[in-house]
Amino acid sequence: MDERLKQQLDFALEVDKEKNIFRQTHLSGHGRNENDAEHAWHMALMAYLLREHANEAVDITKVMLMCLIHDIVEIDAGDTYAYDPEGLKTQKEREEKAKERIFSLLPKDQKEELIALFDEFEAYESPEAKFAHAMDNLQPLLLNNSNDGADWREHGVSAEQVYGRQNKTRLGSEKIFTEVVDRLIREHIEKGNL
Amino acid sequence: MDERLKQQLDFALEVDKEKNIFRQTHLSGHGRNENDAEHAWHMALMAYLLREHANEAVDITKVMLMCLIHDIVEIDAGDTYAYDPEGLKTQKEREEKAKERIFSLLPKDQKEELIALFDEFEAYESPEAKFAHAMDNLQPLLLNNSNDGADWREHGVSAEQVYGRQNKTRLGSEKIFTEVVDRLIREHIEKGNL
Repeated sequence: MDERLKQQLDFALEVDKEKNIFRQTHLSGHGRNENDAEHAWHMALMAYLLREHANEAVDITKVMLMCLIHDIVEIDAGDTYAYDPEGLKTQKEREEKAKERIFSLLPKDQKEELIALFDEFEAYESPEAKFAHAMDNLQPLLLNNSNDGADWREHGVSAEQVYGRQNKTRLGSEKIFTEVVDRLIREHIEKGNL
Repeated sequence: MDERLKQQLDFALEVDKEKNIFRQTHLSGHGRNENDAEHAWHMALMAYLLREHANEAVDITKVMLMCLIHDIVEIDAGDTYAYDPEGLKTQKEREEKAKERIFSLLPKDQKEELIALFDEFEAYESPEAKFAHAMDNLQPLLLNNSNDGADWREHGVSAEQVYGRQNKTRLGSEKIFTEVVDRLIREHIEKGNL
């Protein structure tokens, strides 16, 4: 087997481990905790179907790729809950190390391409990054809403914390923020879930 | 919320159930059974990284989408093991019903688009379908190989059965078939796993 193909397959096998990284979000139907790989799948598919609602025109292939790879670093760094202030302090450093190790399994050009894509996502500036983040925020909100806000209640999350994260959803899609996210958060505040 | 957005979100929530459809393949490291959603994520990412090895030029966005949606019908129809002759007899009928019900949750244009994409994948004729199928065949082979062929041993699968499926991998990528698939199968025959 040629070296390039071998490197690609080594990476493909390594990222299988992402299926063992579990998030705080639970599946619909009050199911088990969700893992990073299925979360990424869900986001990528939602991004494609909802792309017409992005504030700016997006390169949808790039958005889908961002969705697919954005949590690979968690294979080493673990999942950091969006409302865990202690974990968030060290998240950047842990993820930088993981990024270097894992993407280095790939041929050099693909390593560079995927790291650039990951960094672009993290920078939250391009239309694609903003829309991919909107999906990263919307997807667990849909699940949590379907479970009557159980994830928030379990962690005692406040409306202020949720808005702190979800206000940025509007950077990717004003329509989704206004018609879905903001409306759902208000409903959960009324119900006492936040 | 406008009706179109509502339909899109209803579909997004419905497909969450794909995470509960488990396959016969086990995760690397002799892990648990894999589910359809994480399998689809893995395939889509592999398709992007390995696209240079496709026999024919492919529209990679289309391939990735095929990978992401190809198992959605299994939410209703269940997973049919590639080496289960009884299940394979009724698979088509079960999946046709599921396709109609699940994709009908979407706005009409998106329903038609995704059904066309699913049908194209199933037809195994376009360059994109052939390459997506190559990923559908390669991905579990990589995992099963990493587990010393345990999935084949558990089900008493024969080399003939594996070649029956994997010979079609060469329609998508002659290179991957020759340098990876065929080589690995031969190794497992030698080890007595097939």
